[in-house]
Amino acid sequence: MDKGRLEAFTDGVIAIIITIMVLEIKLPQGGTLAALTSGLPVFFAYALSYVNVGIFWNNHHHMLQATEQVDGKVLWANLLLLFWISLMPFTIRWMDETHFAATPTASYGVDLVMSALSYLLLEKAIMACNGYDSKLARAVGNDRKATISLVVYAVAIPLAYYRPWIAIALYLLNAMVWFVPDQRIEKII
Amino acid sequence: MDKGRLEAFTDGVIAIIITIMVLEIKLPQGGTLAALTSGLPVFFAYALSYVNVGIFWNNHHHMLQATEQVDGKVLWANLLLLFWISLMPFTIRWMDETHFAATPTASYGVDLVMSALSYLLLEKAIMACNGYDSKLARAVGNDRKATISLVVYAVAIPLAYYRPWIAIALYLLNAMVWFVPDQRIEKII
Amino acid sequence: MDKGRLEAFTDGVIAIIITIMVLEIKLPQGGTLAALTSGLPVFFAYALSYVNVGIFWNNHHHMLQATEQVDGKVLWANLLLLFWISLMPFTIRWMDETHFAATPTASYGVDLVMSALSYLLLEKAIMACNGYDSKLARAVGNDRKATISLVVYAVAIPLAYYRPWIAIALYLLNAMVWFVPDQRIEKII
Amino acid sequence: MDKGRLEAFTDGVIAIIITIMVLEIKLPQGGTLAALTSGLPVFFAYALSYVNVGIFWNNHHHMLQATEQVDGKVLWANLLLLFWISLMPFTIRWMDETHFAATPTASYGVDLVMSALSYLLLEKAIMACNGYDSKLARAVGNDRKATISLVVYAVAIPLAYYRPWIAIALYLLNAMVWFVPDQRIEKII
Repeated sequence: MDKGRLEAFTDGVIAIIITIMVLEIKLPQGGTLAALTSGLPVFFAYALSYVNVGIFWNNHHHMLQATEQVDGKVLWANLLLLFWISLMPFTIRWMDETHFAATPTASYGVDLVMSALSYLLLEKAIMACNGYDSKLARAVGNDRKATISLVVYAVAIPLAYYRPWIAIALYLLNAMVWFVPDQRIEKII
Repeated sequence: MDKGRLEAFTDGVIAIIITIMVLEIKLPQGGTLAALTSGLPVFFAYALSYVNVGIFWNNHHHMLQATEQVDGKVLWANLLLLFWISLMPFTIRWMDETHFAATPTASYGVDLVMSALSYLLLEKAIMACNGYDSKLARAVGNDRKATISLVVYAVAIPLAYYRPWIAIALYLLNAMVWFVPDQRIEKII
Repeated sequence: MDKGRLEAFTDGVIAIIITIMVLEIKLPQGGTLAALTSGLPVFFAYALSYVNVGIFWNNHHHMLQATEQVDGKVLWANLLLLFWISLMPFTIRWMDETHFAATPTASYGVDLVMSALSYLLLEKAIMACNGYDSKLARAVGNDRKATISLVVYAVAIPLAYYRPWIAIALYLLNAMVWFVPDQRIEKII
Repeated sequence: MDKGRLEAFTDGVIAIIITIMVLEIKLPQGGTLAALTSGLPVFFAYALSYVNVGIFWNNHHHMLQATEQVDGKVLWANLLLLFWISLMPFTIRWMDETHFAATPTASYGVDLVMSALSYLLLEKAIMACNGYDSKLARAVGNDRKATISLVVYAVAIPLAYYRPWIAIALYLLNAMVWFVPDQRIEKII
């Protein structure tokens, strides 16, 4: 089956998530510069989530460029990925409202892990459907980068109960690693 | 007429429905693990609706793959299907707020029946437009699977007034039957 | 310039309008059948708006099928049409909350007129860009149907101040006339 | 890489921003003509934002028409542009609620500047990816129009602290300059 509609649907869902996230930022209390400044931490939290969702979209975009066809399993793996990404505004808002308490901070990590796992699952489903000698399979290999990423999250989540900021620093680190879209795929295309 | 825009529009509507549904989950009261746990039933209710809408999207995707052209009747049948699917977040929220009272639970079943009927209507409209020897017609036949599905719903709705959980169990059963996208269409493509 | 992106953008905007309109229906007060019944008038009001927006989408779909290229003027005419359509959920909600008072009912008519005028403007802009011997120009002619439609609205709006229900009946009449997508275009394609 | 998905994603995000902005207009207090009239200033503020976002979409549409391929840097530059555009409903709402106080009015200008800068960044990224002898590079040159636009904003922002209406007048002036989509690109295509 053709991949075009899978891409279009994913774009629609991620466009809504990314937009609604930014629209949820609350108005400052009053029209002064001080009111604006006191809202800056929240602003940065949302900017970071924007980047995180942007990373998933960019990598998805690259992965699908190296894909030739899709089947029913790929559709469901993709819906699973979108499900976890769609929970991101929810977990971020929770972290915000509880001033980065331990459980919300850990939940955000769990959401990132589930998204990363779904992404790997989608990658496997696409490879199974396109053959292990397809462009994607040759570009990605056994995807060591994703595995390291999962290990970092697995360490960060329990640490949220010790010091939430350590967990957040590790989430940031992980985001930075993925900021540059997949060079391996760009090379092979 | 070309089917591309019908697909794109449907993707847009379903993307919004599926995303807003997840965004509607309320934040837990406080930042503890207990607060998160007490919200789990609602979380599963939303996860199930996500799967239900996902099923319609996957099957729609398969059906349109086997479609060559569309006409004005197909456009309206599709809009009718989207109307009933768009009511799903509404009926789910109602079930939630009334703790699965009889009428809301029955309403959810009515919404699922109307969606299933609209889906069949759309199938018929596409066959009428593409000819009864088209790929879709050969793949789907008289669609016995959909007919059985309708019968199960017809039984579940009155049962909601006896014991709501029986109705919900039947809805789940129906979802499971449709979870696997249409193999008949995959075979013929 | 290529018309593909104009179609995609329009689909996105209309998909959001149509979906959010349905999501705005308020939950019934309590879980009884009586609570559901008392919400039925609102439900029908929303169903009608859904049909109205659906009519614009279907006709837009037909018109663009007969279009070969677009320019900057077409883009702006299209944005103007989307602006007026996007105000429909607003005017409907206002009619709802004021129990069909004169001014809100007249406003709804004004919104429909502006949408219809923008639609004609878009039609003209497309013809200017594709030539007056293009497929669209031959199919539509001087569009007498649209002109009659505008006259009916012009009569309905002042009547809203006499008896709102007469205005609403005229809006319904107009919707019915446009329910069948443009046969003239289907014939020529 | 192919530009199609970048366009589709951008359309999705802008469609949501433009629609939600209009949906946010509050209902008039009561059903009278006076209630409607008192809401007109807010209505015009939203109409102007609609035009502003429409300008970015039209120019983006033109720019991408003259683009042949995209890479990872273009994807991120585009996400940055969408980020700043997505903040527009936020800054407008803030201006509204504070009755055009100095800081909110200046913030709106900052948002417009950041959007314009991101647009230039995107233009550069596309030229770097398509070559400096590409269609876009020949059409746009060193983009003097955009540079003048930035200078006007740079003057308007501090003036918001002196007289907010002067800043707003300059924003309007800037919008008018960009209202006509890029003729240079239309000529070269």
